[in-house]
This record gives sequence, structure tokens and C-alpha cells, in this order.
Amino acid sequence: MASSEIDILIHNAHILTMNNNLETFNRGYILIKDTLISDMGPMDKFHFSYGNKIDVKEEIDAKGDLVIPGFVNAHGHFAMTLFRGIADDLPLTKWLNDYIWPIEAKLKPKDCYVGTQLAAIEMIQGGTTTACDMYFHEEKSLQAMEEIGFRGVLGYGMIDLGKATRRAIEMTRVKKFLKYAKENAKLCSIIISPHATNTCSDELLLASKELAEKNQLRIQIHLSETKDEFDDSMKKNNCSPITHLANIGFLNENLVAAHCVWLNDEDCKLLSENKVKISHNPTSNLKLGSGIFRYQTLFENGITIALGTDGAASNNNLSMLSELRLASYIHKGVNTNPEILPATEAISMATINGAKALGLQKTVGSLEIGKKADLAIINTKTPNVWPPHNPYSLIAFCTNDSNVKTTIIDGKTVMKDRQLLTINYKEVMTEAKDIILNLMKSDDLKQYKDKLKFLQ
Amino acid sequence: MASSEIDILIHNAHILTMNNNLETFNRGYILIKDTLISDMGPMDKFHFSYGNKIDVKEEIDAKGDLVIPGFVNAHGHFAMTLFRGIADDLPLTKWLNDYIWPIEAKLKPKDCYVGTQLAAIEMIQGGTTTACDMYFHEEKSLQAMEEIGFRGVLGYGMIDLGKATRRAIEMTRVKKFLKYAKENAKLCSIIISPHATNTCSDELLLASKELAEKNQLRIQIHLSETKDEFDDSMKKNNCSPITHLANIGFLNENLVAAHCVWLNDEDCKLLSENKVKISHNPTSNLKLGSGIFRYQTLFENGITIALGTDGAASNNNLSMLSELRLASYIHKGVNTNPEILPATEAISMATINGAKALGLQKTVGSLEIGKKADLAIINTKTPNVWPPHNPYSLIAFCTNDSNVKTTIIDGKTVMKDRQLLTINYKEVMTEAKDIILNLMKSDDLKQYKDKLKFLQ
Repeated sequence: MASSEIDILIHNAHILTMNNNLETFNRGYILIKDTLISDMGPMDKFHFSYGNKIDVKEEIDAKGDLVIPGFVNAHGHFAMTLFRGIADDLPLTKWLNDYIWPIEAKLKPKDCYVGTQLAAIEMIQGGTTTACDMYFHEEKSLQAMEEIGFRGVLGYGMIDLGKATRRAIEMTRVKKFLKYAKENAKLCSIIISPHATNTCSDELLLASKELAEKNQLRIQIHLSETKDEFDDSMKKNNCSPITHLANIGFLNENLVAAHCVWLNDEDCKLLSENKVKISHNPTSNLKLGSGIFRYQTLFENGITIALGTDGAASNNNLSMLSELRLASYIHKGVNTNPEILPATEAISMATINGAKALGLQKTVGSLEIGKKADLAIINTKTPNVWPPHNPYSLIAFCTNDSNVKTTIIDGKTVMKDRQLLTINYKEVMTEAKDIILNLMKSDDLKQYKDKLKFLQ
Repeated sequence: MASSEIDILIHNAHILTMNNNLETFNRGYILIKDTLISDMGPMDKFHFSYGNKIDVKEEIDAKGDLVIPGFVNAHGHFAMTLFRGIADDLPLTKWLNDYIWPIEAKLKPKDCYVGTQLAAIEMIQGGTTTACDMYFHEEKSLQAMEEIGFRGVLGYGMIDLGKATRRAIEMTRVKKFLKYAKENAKLCSIIISPHATNTCSDELLLASKELAEKNQLRIQIHLSETKDEFDDSMKKNNCSPITHLANIGFLNENLVAAHCVWLNDEDCKLLSENKVKISHNPTSNLKLGSGIFRYQTLFENGITIALGTDGAASNNNLSMLSELRLASYIHKGVNTNPEILPATEAISMATINGAKALGLQKTVGSLEIGKKADLAIINTKTPNVWPPHNPYSLIAFCTNDSNVKTTIIDGKTVMKDRQLLTINYKEVMTEAKDIILNLMKSDDLKQYKDKLKFLQ
């Protein structure tokens, strides 16, 4: 191999590949050419193969650091980062009706652009390299992510509330977004995103499924998130939301169902039989008081369980490190069993399982030759992770986002030594503050009057 | 007031006092003289009282930052920071018998000194200013904390396993430590610390109580942490551990009980009636699979509930920000009620409640004139907390330890802009690694052989 072909060499790193065998290299290297991992292995192999001949554009000596696949955030609403902390500790209906929906209705395309920028910045700083979004004005979210160099999986969230006219509008909008994305997306991809069973008619759900199949895309939906949603379906359909989806032929292996908190045993069986993928969002489920996900049952049913942060309005951050830790702790605790969801499994949820859920397992989610170079380098030389006994437990149980030193997406270094390279974060922060301040000052949003003091 | 008397002026800060009225100053100031908060209030008052006349040794412009009382970590085993990540995802008995106890038995006084230094460094970096410890070689822990300038509340952990000879040794040791501490402690204080009901005889418990009363000290104990402990007491005493302690006259308002996971309704009543203080340790309880603390019942019973990290071997960090967030999330989730443990209450648990539990409420735990100047300054200008809508929810739900900029203990700045001022953390990290590496290489600790690879 001609040495000049190599873009980035990472060497002397402790590498956790997160491949099927959980292979690790105690001291290893990764070569990146264009967008791909072109070679990797232990340092012995590097010295044997390349000797001193290699000449690279960028060299990263990662001695004592950990290299892991970039995190895959399987579910979120990223423009909602603008609403972080806008209303907390409230019952779900009050939170939505009085705070979130009134202000969300005012969001303009430019606002969603800035909100998505802010989300991508935070995710890059936390080692996330792929994230799945469901929101509106997705053209602007796509634009923001492409500009930053973030691997977005974007879905226009469709809601028809059973109305044919609204359904027609939603289908037009999603097709328009699809066309836009096909023309403009390089790094990003699309996911068809009907909002939920209690906000979408069966007709919209089935039309979504048909559209996804026609375009060979995945579908995401919110499913069985709350007891109310479950009870509503029992009343309306005389069966659970999941049984209803099975009855209408909506469940299949291309579906990514977010939440899945309220499940009976039959629901677990149906999800397993239909190979439905799940995005588990523990922080959101706990913080909104939605309930406890039946992790162990679903895991034992062989279901692919990925991990998501949900939006920053119900989290209140987009840290996959926090999310995977919480997942491990909560399921150990509620099952009174410390062996459940060990560190390796928690990190798998946040990486390769996310890739599998989103249909990107051949592209990202583990560090393997030929896959896209999406990775994070973790600093292990800080007091909060010291002494570094075990690399998996260090990541799962000790780190915080500030331990992420460097993030590479699609072979491009987007953060190096905590410096963001593809976006000016201070400008985005200023814009985000101006947007939200102006929205909160709207005459018809008096509920925010007392909340302006701190922000101003 | 002569201006030269002021040591530190913090101004333009958003101050959360965490006093009884949860008073805040949107733009406020704090004056520190010697070890105390000598004055504080809104900036208007500052300009009126001092004009331009004030001359201070150290001035901190905290514009846009938050100032909060330093966190009070109500329960931990700080020298165990050496064992962070040494063994995870294991059943409690295997974890203790095969991993923790064999290596713990080898710890020398110097090792505990370094382990405590490492713990204090991490806690300072996370805004913790007071912490309660239970371990052995406590003379060395006290020395480490005094040198760093950390407000330790230290207890020699006594265990007699029902044996009179061992009991006599333990009582001698604790009295020796008491004498040492009285002579050497300036910042630190003492807590009498019988280990647990299943490791201490009733005689040792009552002797501990007598010693505490004689010296006007608090007592801490591990209590009802696991189902096994509860079941053992039912077998041995035909009642719960707490009922047994009530029966022998051990419960009182000076007792700080750590964990309290396995409680029947009678236990909750007894804890309340006897004004026992609780240290809730959510991460440890979840990670070890001990179970779920009955937060809401105990809160409604008016019990003072403080917050602890436990040791880093079962956490695996000492972050009070992580701990208070987890507490809020888990209790909202298991109660399917998002109004439980709101941000203000979670921060109270981690500050003033800790002070109340440890009997230090006149000294620390809130920012008030005349109290000790123990505080943390939180950076609110980072993407992970942006936009900063609400100061309480920002702290409780968004930050990580890297948002703590500056930590002041007893009027001394121990960390400024993330730089530790009273200890060389790199030296401590090197020493800690050497200690644990040598311990793990012991011929009789073959269980660690496969764990050495990453550390070396």
C-alpha cells in the first residue's frame, strides 16, 4: 500500500472493537483511508506490515487511551435541545399541553436547524457519531447534520389524528422530504416515522409501511410508552397497541419501536416473532414517570435492543454514556441482580445494537476493516476513572462525556482534543439562546414569563 | 468593614442558597473572610454597601455561572477508590468474597492515605466539599484530607463478628483514632462507625452508642442494605434489623443509617419516630442489585434523607451530580410519577440534608452568612447544559462533573478553573496505580491475573 493513501493513523491505543467476538487490542492501531477503516490490528502487526514506511496525513498517538466505535443514539428529537430544562418534574399531560406543544408549534425551519446543530455538538462531545431523529422541518435538520459531518438518520414525524385531510398533507410532506434527502444527503439517511399508534390512523401507519418498503427504508414509531397509551388501545381496539399493530400487519423486522415500556407477555412474544427492533430510552422513561422497561424479558427473547436519549426536553441531555450507565443500573436494581446488563452488553446496546436497529450494521457500530471510520477516543488518564482496571467497566461505570477526547465520523475528525473542528459552537449557542428567548417572550405563552429571569 | 479583611469576593453569580426558603440571587455576591461567608446578597446590596471601596485578596467574576453549596457526600469508603472497576457485574457474595475482601485485607496505612487522596481529588473536581467515610487506617485518611483541605467526617469501621476479644480490639482502635483525631483534626470530624447489624454484636453496637454519646458524636451504620441481611435478622431475632435495633435501644436522632433498602412499614415508622437520618446510596444499591429504596414513603414520613456515593468499588465514581440525578430518575420511574423528587429536592438531598444528617447543619450545607464558605461554582456556558432555562434543573439533570469550575472549602479555594490547588493529582495517580498493581500481583491473589493486562 502506498503510504500516501492513508488519511489518519491511530496507534498505541487500547481498542474495543465491539465486533461479534468482542475482540480487543491491548495496544493496537487503526488506519483510516477516505471514509473507511482500511486496516487495524495489534501494534505488532503494524510494525510488521508497515515498518517505518508509513506516511499519513494525521497521526494520533493514543497511548493509554481507549478507542471505541462511535455511539449510535437510536431515538431522539434533536431540535428539541432548544427546550432543555424548559419544564421539568411535571405530569406528562401538563408538560406536553402547557409547555412543550404550545412552544413547539412556533418553531420555524431555521429554529430546527439551530436546535439540531446544538444537539449534534453535544453528541459529538459525548462520542456519538450516529443518531436517529424524529421531528419536523427535517430538511433543515439534514442540512445542519450534513454541514457538521454527523451521521443523522432522519425522519419526518407524521401525525394525522385520524383525519384524512391531514393524512394527505403528511404523506405529501414526507415524500417531499424523501425527495429532498435523496438529492442532498451524503452522510445522512432517512427513516419513515409515523409518530405513534394514538396519533396516527391505521391508514397512515400502513401507508408509512408501504412507503418504507418501496424505498427500502426502516420505520420508527413511539410504541407503548405510557400506561395511558396502553389503556387507550385496550378501550379502542380491545387489545394492546402491539397486538393491534400485529393485527393490521404493521410489525416487521424493519420497524424500530421506541420505548416499549408497557408490554404484556403476548406483546413481548409478538415483538420477538416479528423481529421488531427496540430503542430503549431509560432516562426519558424514568424522568417522565412512564415506567420501567422489561429489559431482561426482551433480552431473553433475543430482541435487538438499542439505546436512545429521546429529546433533551425529557432527559435533559444527549449523553449516551449517561444513558448506557443508567440502563445497566436500573435493570440490575429492579431485578435485584447485579449480573444483568453487564458493561459489555451496555456498550453493545449503545453501539452495534443501535447500528443493527437502524439497518446500518454493515456500515457502523463496531470497529472492523471495511466499515466506516466512526469512532471515539476516550481519555483514561483522569482522576474520575483512575485506576483504569477494566476498559469496559471504565466506560460503562466511570466516565462522563468530558472523557471523550476525539470523535471521528466517516473518516473525518470532527472533534480533536475536545476542540470542535466543523462548527463554531459559541455562535450556535448564541443563536439558540436568542431563538428560545424570543419564543418564550411570545404574548400567548405567558406560562414562560416566570422562567425568563435566569435565561436573560 | 475594613476592606482588607476580605479574602474572596465572588460577584455577578446566580446563587442558589439552598436555605430553608430556597432563596436565590439572580445576580449576587458572596464575601468570604477567613473560613466563613461574611456577607452575601444581590449585587444591588453589594454596590450600596461597598461601592468601589472594597479591596479583596481574590476576586472571582462568576457572571453567568451558578454558585451552590458544596455537596455533602453522606456515605462512602474512600480508600476503596483504589478498587474502582476491579470487579463488576458480579453477585454480591462473589464480589466480596473473591475480589474485595482478599485484596482489602492487604491494604497498608499508606495505601489508604493515597486512596483517600484520590477520592478527595475526584470529589473536589465534582463540587463535593464534605464527605463521610467508614474504613480503616483512618488516621491516614484524616491526614490526607487535612493536607488537601477537605472536610472529612471519618469513622473507623468496627466489626467484631460476635467475638469478645475482637470487640475489645475494635474499641481500643476506635478510642485510639478518637484521641488522634482530637489532637490533629482541624477541618475533619469524627463519626462512630459500627459496620452493620450482621457484623457487629449487640454489645459492640451499644458500646458504640455510649462512646458517641460521651463524645457528642454521630454514629453511622450500614442498615438493611440487602435482602440477605433482612432475612438473617428475621431468622436470628425474629424481627427486622431495624426493629431489633429499636428493641435494644440503638436508634436515635444521632444515627445515620446507610442504605435502608429492605424496610417493612413498621421499619419506616421506627426510623421516623426515632428521627434516624438516612444516607440513600442509589447507584450502589442498583449496581449491586441490592434493591430499590422506598424513597417516597420515607420522605412522607418526614425523615431526613441525605445522599451518598458509597465506595468507588460499587459505584464506580464519587460524583454527587450523578448520584442526585439517579435518585430523582429512579424514584420518578418506579413510582411512575414525574413529580416525585424534583430538582430542588434532589439538590437539597445532596447538600443541606447531608449536613443535617451529619450534624453539620449550622456549619455547612447551605449558603448563609456565618456559615463556613464551602461552595462550588458551576459553569453554565457549555453545550451540554445549553440553553440554561432553569438553574435547579440545569444542575440536577444536565451537568456532569466537568461543569464544576471552582470549589471552595472552609474559605480556601481548592480548585480554580478546574486546576487543583492543594494537591498534585498526577503524583497521586501514579502512586495509586503502583499500589494497586503491586497488590494485584500478590501470589495469593490469582483471581486478578487476567485483570492486569489493561492496568500495566
